[in-house]
Amino acid sequence: MTLGIGVIGTGMIGRDHARRIEKTLTGGRIVAVNDVVPGAAADAIKELGLGATDHISPEDLIAAPEVDAVLVTSSAPTHEALVLQAIAAGKPVFCEKPLATSVAGAQRIVGAELAAGRRLVQVGFMRRFDSGYRALKRVVESELGAPLMVHAAHRNVAAGPGFSNEMAIYETAIHEIDVLRWLLNEEYVSAQIILPCMTSNAKKGDMDPQIVLLETASGVRIDIEVFANCVYGYDIQCEVVGELGLARLPEPEAVPMRKAGQFSRPILQDWKERFIRAYDIELQYFIDTVRRGEAGGPSSWDGYVASVVADACVEAQKQPGKVVDIAIRQRPALYS
Amino acid sequence: MTLGIGVIGTGMIGRDHARRIEKTLTGGRIVAVNDVVPGAAADAIKELGLGATDHISPEDLIAAPEVDAVLVTSSAPTHEALVLQAIAAGKPVFCEKPLATSVAGAQRIVGAELAAGRRLVQVGFMRRFDSGYRALKRVVESELGAPLMVHAAHRNVAAGPGFSNEMAIYETAIHEIDVLRWLLNEEYVSAQIILPCMTSNAKKGDMDPQIVLLETASGVRIDIEVFANCVYGYDIQCEVVGELGLARLPEPEAVPMRKAGQFSRPILQDWKERFIRAYDIELQYFIDTVRRGEAGGPSSWDGYVASVVADACVEAQKQPGKVVDIAIRQRPALYS
Amino acid sequence: MTLGIGVIGTGMIGRDHARRIEKTLTGGRIVAVNDVVPGAAADAIKELGLGATDHISPEDLIAAPEVDAVLVTSSAPTHEALVLQAIAAGKPVFCEKPLATSVAGAQRIVGAELAAGRRLVQVGFMRRFDSGYRALKRVVESELGAPLMVHAAHRNVAAGPGFSNEMAIYETAIHEIDVLRWLLNEEYVSAQIILPCMTSNAKKGDMDPQIVLLETASGVRIDIEVFANCVYGYDIQCEVVGELGLARLPEPEAVPMRKAGQFSRPILQDWKERFIRAYDIELQYFIDTVRRGEAGGPSSWDGYVASVVADACVEAQKQPGKVVDIAIRQRPALYS
Amino acid sequence: MTLGIGVIGTGMIGRDHARRIEKTLTGGRIVAVNDVVPGAAADAIKELGLGATDHISPEDLIAAPEVDAVLVTSSAPTHEALVLQAIAAGKPVFCEKPLATSVAGAQRIVGAELAAGRRLVQVGFMRRFDSGYRALKRVVESELGAPLMVHAAHRNVAAGPGFSNEMAIYETAIHEIDVLRWLLNEEYVSAQIILPCMTSNAKKGDMDPQIVLLETASGVRIDIEVFANCVYGYDIQCEVVGELGLARLPEPEAVPMRKAGQFSRPILQDWKERFIRAYDIELQYFIDTVRRGEAGGPSSWDGYVASVVADACVEAQKQPGKVVDIAIRQRPALYS
Repeated sequence: MTLGIGVIGTGMIGRDHARRIEKTLTGGRIVAVNDVVPGAAADAIKELGLGATDHISPEDLIAAPEVDAVLVTSSAPTHEALVLQAIAAGKPVFCEKPLATSVAGAQRIVGAELAAGRRLVQVGFMRRFDSGYRALKRVVESELGAPLMVHAAHRNVAAGPGFSNEMAIYETAIHEIDVLRWLLNEEYVSAQIILPCMTSNAKKGDMDPQIVLLETASGVRIDIEVFANCVYGYDIQCEVVGELGLARLPEPEAVPMRKAGQFSRPILQDWKERFIRAYDIELQYFIDTVRRGEAGGPSSWDGYVASVVADACVEAQKQPGKVVDIAIRQRPALYS
Repeated sequence: MTLGIGVIGTGMIGRDHARRIEKTLTGGRIVAVNDVVPGAAADAIKELGLGATDHISPEDLIAAPEVDAVLVTSSAPTHEALVLQAIAAGKPVFCEKPLATSVAGAQRIVGAELAAGRRLVQVGFMRRFDSGYRALKRVVESELGAPLMVHAAHRNVAAGPGFSNEMAIYETAIHEIDVLRWLLNEEYVSAQIILPCMTSNAKKGDMDPQIVLLETASGVRIDIEVFANCVYGYDIQCEVVGELGLARLPEPEAVPMRKAGQFSRPILQDWKERFIRAYDIELQYFIDTVRRGEAGGPSSWDGYVASVVADACVEAQKQPGKVVDIAIRQRPALYS
Repeated sequence: MTLGIGVIGTGMIGRDHARRIEKTLTGGRIVAVNDVVPGAAADAIKELGLGATDHISPEDLIAAPEVDAVLVTSSAPTHEALVLQAIAAGKPVFCEKPLATSVAGAQRIVGAELAAGRRLVQVGFMRRFDSGYRALKRVVESELGAPLMVHAAHRNVAAGPGFSNEMAIYETAIHEIDVLRWLLNEEYVSAQIILPCMTSNAKKGDMDPQIVLLETASGVRIDIEVFANCVYGYDIQCEVVGELGLARLPEPEAVPMRKAGQFSRPILQDWKERFIRAYDIELQYFIDTVRRGEAGGPSSWDGYVASVVADACVEAQKQPGKVVDIAIRQRPALYS
Repeated sequence: MTLGIGVIGTGMIGRDHARRIEKTLTGGRIVAVNDVVPGAAADAIKELGLGATDHISPEDLIAAPEVDAVLVTSSAPTHEALVLQAIAAGKPVFCEKPLATSVAGAQRIVGAELAAGRRLVQVGFMRRFDSGYRALKRVVESELGAPLMVHAAHRNVAAGPGFSNEMAIYETAIHEIDVLRWLLNEEYVSAQIILPCMTSNAKKGDMDPQIVLLETASGVRIDIEVFANCVYGYDIQCEVVGELGLARLPEPEAVPMRKAGQFSRPILQDWKERFIRAYDIELQYFIDTVRRGEAGGPSSWDGYVASVVADACVEAQKQPGKVVDIAIRQRPALYS
């Protein structure tokens, strides 16, 4: 049985996911589309050649009997309400980051799943599905002894025009926040921001670069260089230092060349290329688990934790150098 | 419209491809299966949960109206006849290597396509679909100036029990034979075999390693180290030296580690992992082109050329050091 | 004219330097030796076949007319007095780290040079003479734009038996403290220590690893992982991130190998090998500058600054997480 | 006792060696100089500040009582006679490549040493003293099992104006010819030249690149890409493939950088930088062994073998593809 999927929000990421489901992945089909912008859903249906109904409202889409699962790719402020509606309808839902725009909102979603007695939500933390991170996790768990430190970097060529300091956390560091606790298999207890010299390539007033320091419950110390305007490329680095050695995230595949006095390999410029396979795998995983009547991957609990930690980092930005405690609730059994 | 595919031959590669089509790729479905071994097709249907008919003969399968395209994954000696039948039936056919077990056989297939006035055959040279080779080809065509030399290596951990010297060409070097003429976009004119010291890890009488020297029409010189018992890993190397510089095939993704006095990265042991994505992409390409009413990828002409070149290499094995001319027919317009 | 050099202290480093001057370097000769341990100087003279006088006291050695320059390689607490005596005698002196065991002591040496109106002291910060650091400095000064951050690591296989937390600063991080301000060409303004999980390979009570955070006057942020028991090797890492890109310290030369499923390169185990050439170059530089009647290299001012910064780091160790200000005096013109 | 050295020939390499002996190495001193060009020796004495006598003839220089050892850095055609004179005078002699311009000439030198009953000659094959080749040799002898193949490359940015095809052997490949038999510890039995496409960056009529194929007595097969106009850099590659794995010559130290969409490391442009340390070490070795009354390093026997092999390669150039046998005499006990 092919999974009937309804997509709410047909912007770039919504269309990418819809195309993925139709052209690349198996077991799923886009049967319903909704967008708050009049005509946008119809455009997407046409552009992608979808055999899907254009629903007048998200509620309508969620309720439609042919919709077996929901994809939430609308704007961030709408996520919470849509995910809650999907849970209320008993329908599995894949929600892009962030799960909600507040900790309270994420808690409400967790509460709704707890009330329903089952997991229905997968959050779009795609890095957990990246082959490099997965290989690194295997090495961390088998080769290095107890992890002690993580040195990470998240570098973008240039910040977009609307970039804000908070975005450096909520949209950039959020990926490390999620993937490193998955990698280490434990929670954070504090956050701190360190501000280096600002690059002259950032716009006036932007904190860029920033160094985010995190501490885990067991005492692992993490430093994340977040650099929105590094100019040279999109570059994601992660090094885990354990008692017996260290391991790094593999570099993306690139052709080594010798030319004009240089040994060189190209560095990606566009973030979309870096995790393109991970997007495929996370959505295929969603389709596969839902078809088996299961749930897995990054949960609404993970979305809640990311939200708590990101808030602490933004709080820490207000007073660079200050250590901000991170208080995460007891993890309910549903998410263990 | 989903492409109905009939699989002839349900051995390892046949099942892998069937699983791929059912679970990973889109646009195709296994609708018919045949195997010369009684019960094998039924087993495959059960194991993979296929909604497919078990046909009593390949002829029957090829003729079945629900079969839109044929996958030939039976034993090598059967390929030619099956491909010819598919062409006669006007059905697109994906044929695993080799296209035929003789040059004459490959020519008969080319002749049948020429008579039909259209391409129907895609041969399973998956390396052309590997992201590393494709990236290398882009660099070769844009950065290096005229190619002058290629240094390549094809190393396996250990030769299987039935390994023969001919197999080092027909099953191993055949991949370089195909992918390097695609990479350089030209034909070979001669072949030569050089025999180094034999490794004591090969069985008595095996020529291992061998160095295959090829020359192209423009004079590019290629050396391919073919090493069936290199012990350390499955390792495919390719370096193209041009007038302005050189480029190499990227290494497979691997986690770099520092431990116990060594900086290290694991090397693949199993050849199946190395090109697993390329298998996906080549078959998806087959399905997509067939669904569009087109044909592409490695053609029966490429299968014919590979066969001529491989025969020359095997001839050259008989007298190591001797240069054997390679005579390739004029390429028909259908394949240009 | 060959430089007559008197060596005070014939322990491991003293003998190494004496051997270096006699066998590897040019322009200098060991003419006088002294050691506080009875018989030790005579032993060294015999072992190395030196044509040198065994002086009964350091004072005697410094005063000897054939001694043109002094090498202080005795125990750390004796350095200050010996360097002051050499300055008083108007003789150039090469002093191993530390210049003095206190900031006040280092200041007294600076004061003595200022009073003498000329530089006579070179301190043994050999990393400034390492070809890798020198190449990195050239790149930092010409390619990266303004430096913003430095990520560094100093890892030893295992701490010696007498290891203390202070030694992690005074004997380990001291090298980064000196070389990074030379690399960046500016002073530090604050220090902070972060304590990760302790490795179970350190002895009870040792802080290991530690992360030293330094801030420079312009705001460059430096993180130095100091790991005395990393088990896997002696590994010195340094990455400078600038506005336009980043550069790393080169890895030591090592043979890349493919064997037993691994691509590998050996990592040095012994710190003595890592900077062995830098030791040669720093001492040759001392001999050459002295013979030209000049002075250069790491000065007593550099020794003083290293002392101030190291004290601040040790102060910071007492309250991990606390930022300790670093107050460095105005640099006298003699040292600009 | 300092070794008194007389230099015959004060061109670039002669002055480099003289400077090396005076400024960098220990145990030797330039006491005598001769050059065929009137005034050149006096110039060199002045430029380098040598306390040396300007001798009117090489004979005079060799006979001078203060000359303990002779350095032959004059033009190639003069080498044989000068080395023979030094042997006749019983004086150790360091001779730059080539030892002689003919096999017969080299044999005469070997004969003279045999008659003298002792080795007096060291030939300037500096690669044997390169730390990278030495490390590679240790790995080859301990880690790889029996060597089976060597893949090597010798690439120069651009051939000088007087470049000839013979020079590609006598001045370029000669280094691989010597260092690979030292690395493998055995002799060659045949040579063959393969000509790829010629680069358009070579001058009309030049064979460039060439591939030199060598075979050793045990059957190891060697391919050396000799590329005089590779444009991109001075690049020396060597990969030894053994029964258990493979190892490569280390790359020269270089700063890795990430900038402008590229991960890069600079490649040397000038061959003089690549082996500059090896030149120091070979000459220091000469001085040290002579002072101990011994002889070592590349011998006149090695010079003779290199000459035989180079002649075979030049013979092979005349008929590319043809295998030319290499006949090396029985090695006298003096050289074992």
